[in-house]
Amino acid sequence: MNSLTARTPPVALNQLEAWQAAEALARRDLLAVDLLRACLDRIQAREPQVQAFVSLNADAALRLARELDAGPVRGLLHGLPFGVKDLLDTEDFPTAYGSPIYAGHQPLADAAAVALCRDAGAVMLGKTVSTELANMSPGITRNPHATGHTPGGSSSGSAAAVADGMLALALGTQTAGSLIRPAAYCGVVGFKPSHNRVSKAGVKSLSETLDTVGGFGRSVRDVALLGAVLTGDERLADPRHFDAAAAGPLRIGLCQTPDWSLADTDTRRAWDRAEKALAGSGKALQLPPEMTGLVALQKAVQAFETARSLRPEWRRHAAQLSAPLLALLEDGMRISGATHAQNLQAVARQRQLAEGLFQDHDVLLAPSTVGAAPAGIDFTGDPLFCRGWTLLGLPCIHLPFAQGQTGLPVGLQLVGRFGDDHRLLAAAHWVHQQLLGQNPALATAAPVATAATAAALAER
Amino acid sequence: MNSLTARTPPVALNQLEAWQAAEALARRDLLAVDLLRACLDRIQAREPQVQAFVSLNADAALRLARELDAGPVRGLLHGLPFGVKDLLDTEDFPTAYGSPIYAGHQPLADAAAVALCRDAGAVMLGKTVSTELANMSPGITRNPHATGHTPGGSSSGSAAAVADGMLALALGTQTAGSLIRPAAYCGVVGFKPSHNRVSKAGVKSLSETLDTVGGFGRSVRDVALLGAVLTGDERLADPRHFDAAAAGPLRIGLCQTPDWSLADTDTRRAWDRAEKALAGSGKALQLPPEMTGLVALQKAVQAFETARSLRPEWRRHAAQLSAPLLALLEDGMRISGATHAQNLQAVARQRQLAEGLFQDHDVLLAPSTVGAAPAGIDFTGDPLFCRGWTLLGLPCIHLPFAQGQTGLPVGLQLVGRFGDDHRLLAAAHWVHQQLLGQNPALATAAPVATAATAAALAER
Repeated sequence: MNSLTARTPPVALNQLEAWQAAEALARRDLLAVDLLRACLDRIQAREPQVQAFVSLNADAALRLARELDAGPVRGLLHGLPFGVKDLLDTEDFPTAYGSPIYAGHQPLADAAAVALCRDAGAVMLGKTVSTELANMSPGITRNPHATGHTPGGSSSGSAAAVADGMLALALGTQTAGSLIRPAAYCGVVGFKPSHNRVSKAGVKSLSETLDTVGGFGRSVRDVALLGAVLTGDERLADPRHFDAAAAGPLRIGLCQTPDWSLADTDTRRAWDRAEKALAGSGKALQLPPEMTGLVALQKAVQAFETARSLRPEWRRHAAQLSAPLLALLEDGMRISGATHAQNLQAVARQRQLAEGLFQDHDVLLAPSTVGAAPAGIDFTGDPLFCRGWTLLGLPCIHLPFAQGQTGLPVGLQLVGRFGDDHRLLAAAHWVHQQLLGQNPALATAAPVATAATAAALAER
Repeated sequence: MNSLTARTPPVALNQLEAWQAAEALARRDLLAVDLLRACLDRIQAREPQVQAFVSLNADAALRLARELDAGPVRGLLHGLPFGVKDLLDTEDFPTAYGSPIYAGHQPLADAAAVALCRDAGAVMLGKTVSTELANMSPGITRNPHATGHTPGGSSSGSAAAVADGMLALALGTQTAGSLIRPAAYCGVVGFKPSHNRVSKAGVKSLSETLDTVGGFGRSVRDVALLGAVLTGDERLADPRHFDAAAAGPLRIGLCQTPDWSLADTDTRRAWDRAEKALAGSGKALQLPPEMTGLVALQKAVQAFETARSLRPEWRRHAAQLSAPLLALLEDGMRISGATHAQNLQAVARQRQLAEGLFQDHDVLLAPSTVGAAPAGIDFTGDPLFCRGWTLLGLPCIHLPFAQGQTGLPVGLQLVGRFGDDHRLLAAAHWVHQQLLGQNPALATAAPVATAATAAALAER
């Protein structure tokens, strides 16, 4: 028998890290259909509480999984169950962009990112909950660690489903903090690639200057696999790069950002632990004085561009837009086109200045969120600590490694140079090891335990 | 009677410049319904030869025109008939992106640019022909000056319709040279705003780094009006800016580009005339040595990104893609993601270097095309002289002012600093006056004569 499931308890399969499952699938030590069934079992058990999905097609996924098991290995994601934020078009699932305006809307084609994952052999399982048009009005998803808390947004369902072991990987997008924040609140790894490295074709457009496609996994190597497929850059998932990062000394800029005073106790404690764990590699970094006002600039660019992009919805379906979104659109409409032109020129200058940050640093460590997931699901949390990096277009990855005072996940993000996503991921792999190693007890804080993963595969 | 039509021959109305018509419409010296009827008459007479439209709704346009005539002035484009390249979504017209894959496809919402024009009071008349997915395989449109010649592409129908007096204004897009080239071949003014100044929401995505929404008119002030609506920056259409440009001495960099040896006799003669007309303002400018390889870089970025963006069509509908487009996609797929990352870093550097060009120059004069429209409609012409400026994200405007040896229109483009679209347009207005004034006989070379326009309004 060559199926992993014959020798290990099926309950653990859905908790495998994607890269581990991918290796087992490629060797045919694991069948796609078994992995999928484990995810479906998990969904059946937990979806009533978590509510990560807006639609699901188990039958189609099972058919494809059987086909994959019977055929050649298709690509880097062969046999991995994945979900797609409902902001991305899908040819075989309705796509409502989190808005009643688009209820039941069936796109003709997949978003490019979805097509790339399918071509790489991933098994599309369903669409995941987005906030309303990827803005602040929440969907129904709850934090799998504590269902009274928000999972973050706007990529709420994708982060929650991966955190809960329902999916190996999931796609999301970030305009302010919509990948990093839900990753932080749900305790998974979230990866926002460099701006425009991943095609946005078929993604509902909000802000050309900011919108970025990325995704979630349970480890750095998971999102590295996904990132390699999305960018077409195989270096992102090349183990030799991970080894190289481990070998050479890293120069990590410890950048608390000008908003550090707003970080809460949980984030401060995580920061202190990280500083200790990275002693010898890290050096405090302050943004240069000419790089001030990034958060305000990001807000203005987002508001102006979103108001323009959603103009069709505003002029025809305003009654179906939430009050907070209408308020954002009106904020955006109050910004003059002349001011926006200056803002775009400022963005270009800031992105150029950001290059300078990487002359003496390989990567930057920075806060991901103010703290752990807030209580309640009416507010998806503050993207404050993500806005600046999104504005700069830099690749970011959230690393979960700690627990807050209420037991919810906490972590920090690592930020890389524009276009050097492969270096960021390699560095993140090493940094994550240090952070988890420094606090071994915390490595299993997430409901999907990396320890369980290791045990499952050790049985082979 | 307050209708212009009562006192001037209706035949001239469809040839009015958009800004002149807009002023008369706002004063109620001209009725939207009369202007529209003049355009419809022109379409009826000429569309069998020109074939600029893929769809048209005269009844809906007439209803709206009557409503506009009976109500308050809605905005800068009040009562102006406009057309939309079939690459932009429209809620009331099918949108096929120039591809049989999307035959009959009806989007749920307008593209943002379309919604903005409608909100400004423009009267949508129809969808105009795009090449296949805005690439090189031509549509059915012919050059209105000589129907055996290409109108250029990919915004073929929009340029031809405006040139032929069927529409006051039309929307298009540019990824390589799809606004400037058809403007040049059809002898109209084409305006490509700074990259990402105009929302691309609802526009079929080909290349995030390059795609830009813009449009066509019969004068600089026409596209300025359209540009003001699309960017939300009223400075673009502010007459005070046009006057200021006329008052102050302009510093014009005469930039033949490194590909000048490929310009033909028509373009060279136009260049010589322009040099004479602008004597005292112009100074030869060579791109600095570090700004080489822009054309090759643009081609690589376009091929890679288009191959990713059209991946869904390629994997599901390859049989319905033309051979040249398939070849481009395969070229793009041969470029590695690692190379593309370096290319994106190079684009960022080049855009930064481009800022330096504007330290000593207000605007740059450059070739638009190799020459006049080539014979035949199987090839939409070479975007060679547009690729570099598109890569740099700079605003560009084509100025028609000469005739080639076969009588077809020829002109040059003016290029501005990123984000300074209003300065470019003001400068272009002045430059265009010099170019036309230097060659008064050529001012009426286009089938839509500015002389006729002036006569029509002089009757008021």
